[in-house]
Amino acid sequence: MSDLSQSVAIFAPVCPTPNNTSDVIRLGHGSGGKMSSDLLNNVFLPALNNRVLDQLDDAAVMAINDTRLAFTIDSYVVSPIFFPGGDIGSLSVYGTVNDLSMRGAIPAYISASFIMEEGFPIADLQKIVESMKKACFETNIQFAAGDTKVVNRGAADKIFITTCGLGILQYNPAPTANRAVPGDIVIVSGDIGLHGTAIMCARESFELETTIQSDSAPLNELVQEMLKTCPAIRCLRDITRGGLATVLNELASASKVGIEISESAIPIDAQVASICALLGLDPLYVACEGRLVAIVPDSDVEGLLNIMHQHRLGKNAQIIGKVSQQYPERVFMKSRIGGQRILDKLAGEQLPRIC
Amino acid sequence: MSDLSQSVAIFAPVCPTPNNTSDVIRLGHGSGGKMSSDLLNNVFLPALNNRVLDQLDDAAVMAINDTRLAFTIDSYVVSPIFFPGGDIGSLSVYGTVNDLSMRGAIPAYISASFIMEEGFPIADLQKIVESMKKACFETNIQFAAGDTKVVNRGAADKIFITTCGLGILQYNPAPTANRAVPGDIVIVSGDIGLHGTAIMCARESFELETTIQSDSAPLNELVQEMLKTCPAIRCLRDITRGGLATVLNELASASKVGIEISESAIPIDAQVASICALLGLDPLYVACEGRLVAIVPDSDVEGLLNIMHQHRLGKNAQIIGKVSQQYPERVFMKSRIGGQRILDKLAGEQLPRIC
Repeated sequence: MSDLSQSVAIFAPVCPTPNNTSDVIRLGHGSGGKMSSDLLNNVFLPALNNRVLDQLDDAAVMAINDTRLAFTIDSYVVSPIFFPGGDIGSLSVYGTVNDLSMRGAIPAYISASFIMEEGFPIADLQKIVESMKKACFETNIQFAAGDTKVVNRGAADKIFITTCGLGILQYNPAPTANRAVPGDIVIVSGDIGLHGTAIMCARESFELETTIQSDSAPLNELVQEMLKTCPAIRCLRDITRGGLATVLNELASASKVGIEISESAIPIDAQVASICALLGLDPLYVACEGRLVAIVPDSDVEGLLNIMHQHRLGKNAQIIGKVSQQYPERVFMKSRIGGQRILDKLAGEQLPRIC
Repeated sequence: MSDLSQSVAIFAPVCPTPNNTSDVIRLGHGSGGKMSSDLLNNVFLPALNNRVLDQLDDAAVMAINDTRLAFTIDSYVVSPIFFPGGDIGSLSVYGTVNDLSMRGAIPAYISASFIMEEGFPIADLQKIVESMKKACFETNIQFAAGDTKVVNRGAADKIFITTCGLGILQYNPAPTANRAVPGDIVIVSGDIGLHGTAIMCARESFELETTIQSDSAPLNELVQEMLKTCPAIRCLRDITRGGLATVLNELASASKVGIEISESAIPIDAQVASICALLGLDPLYVACEGRLVAIVPDSDVEGLLNIMHQHRLGKNAQIIGKVSQQYPERVFMKSRIGGQRILDKLAGEQLPRIC
């Protein structure tokens, strides 16, 4: 670790920040990485900030009378809309369920709005709605409200779905991004990068034959089990756009701590690793849709891992690192060959429209 | 009225129902009229129906612990995004505030998700976000959560915004579509059709010079004044897609009553009337974004109109008709020249992307 400050100096210029002061929206602004975060800080927060929005967590938390609620919204523009392991319908329900779950909330109600292009096959819509129905049933969330808009052919690509979720908080304090403290342990719930890789392979332009399926799944049950055993979990975040590296940076940044991870501890499926290598992608930045990062007190780790390993979505959970006092707001990774490198947030966009 | 059953027989075949069993989404499916309602009944409700969704009101109502909440979602795809009297930003906030208000709820929290096309000017985004900020401030709703997605150039038209609102119910029972009873009076809060006409004139293809401005406005304050004076208001609905005729049909249908209105009582601005005549549109089907229909007990009407007339958004409120026992689930209109005609829901789409 002694050479880390030097590494920072070496790596910083190699990882250029895109010019976010440019005057148009670029794909990177939707990446969930550095450009998204710049857009948030430069455009949205200066106008809209308030105590609730400023939490900047997977779901906002608020109290109405004595009821503590979690509230979240997300749009889904994934392409293709049907992919190995899921579709835009189940993805949009699971995504919202997962965002509520990351605050320890019980998902209660979901609403969804559909923007469709003229000419979109109603049979496809039916498949999507059926998939949402199953996902709602599976996660015990009630579909409360909906809206449909249709735009002229060519004014949207097939179908976009926006879901909004309302959950009931169970724990106080709720897990949140800024609670990590040095000495805490970082756990990932399973192997990373499946969703993004599955989407990429499903795109028409790539003729890659693989058996990779998206990891798209609802994490509510796993999280409830985890919190029952370990209510002291500090931070929970599902790994979506921007991948593991971006999520770890968000947590390090919100908690003002350093995070040290070990490359060899990160579970990555061999096919995912090969395809990423082939296409020049770093799996640490590839999205999942059914994986989470948990930061927990050292004393709780053993019990927590036991519980996670009993759940199908946590059976490959692993410790990947720890929270450190050094280099606050930075994530650094010990490589397989013993070196160390800074992991920054995703810069630019490596794979648009994965969710 | 004696010839109404005959009128039904005469008019039914003249007003053809589009073939909603066709296999693709058409613009009419987003009209808010008959095709939207068919899509809802044929695709969404069979899969997703439950006690909450089945309310089919402007906002769903649910109780969490002892707190009664209203919950609503809407997407905005209006074109152009800046129009006389408003823009997609304020429209998306007002629309959600209005949907909550129609259940008598106090708007509390709003979330918004932005889908943008690569290349969209950040300066335009800033104007839109600034407009949303003002609208939130004006309606005292707190911006709680957001999301941003970017799609490739050409995969969306500029920007689409989805807003979701959470409100706190004040009245029990809340105003709802199925509470109208024969003898009730039907009130409209102001002149109709401004929004749709303003949008149409603002489209590049129409070179119409007018001073028409959209009526886009938040109805929360007006509704709170109305409910303070008259907590017995049976139904409230803001007049959006599908226009006055469609809204009245929805109320007649939900309450299983007839509604009789008088053409000469309906306030329509002279410019709106001329432009609609020029373009062959019926103003009764043109959207507003700051007008409502209220159905109220006869005994409360005088007091209610007094209160409405004191508010800038209700100063032209008028009685336009009454609820009748005859011809349940039908709306009929006495024309200026003394005849009577059935007003059906909007069939097809006369003006896509007005909200």
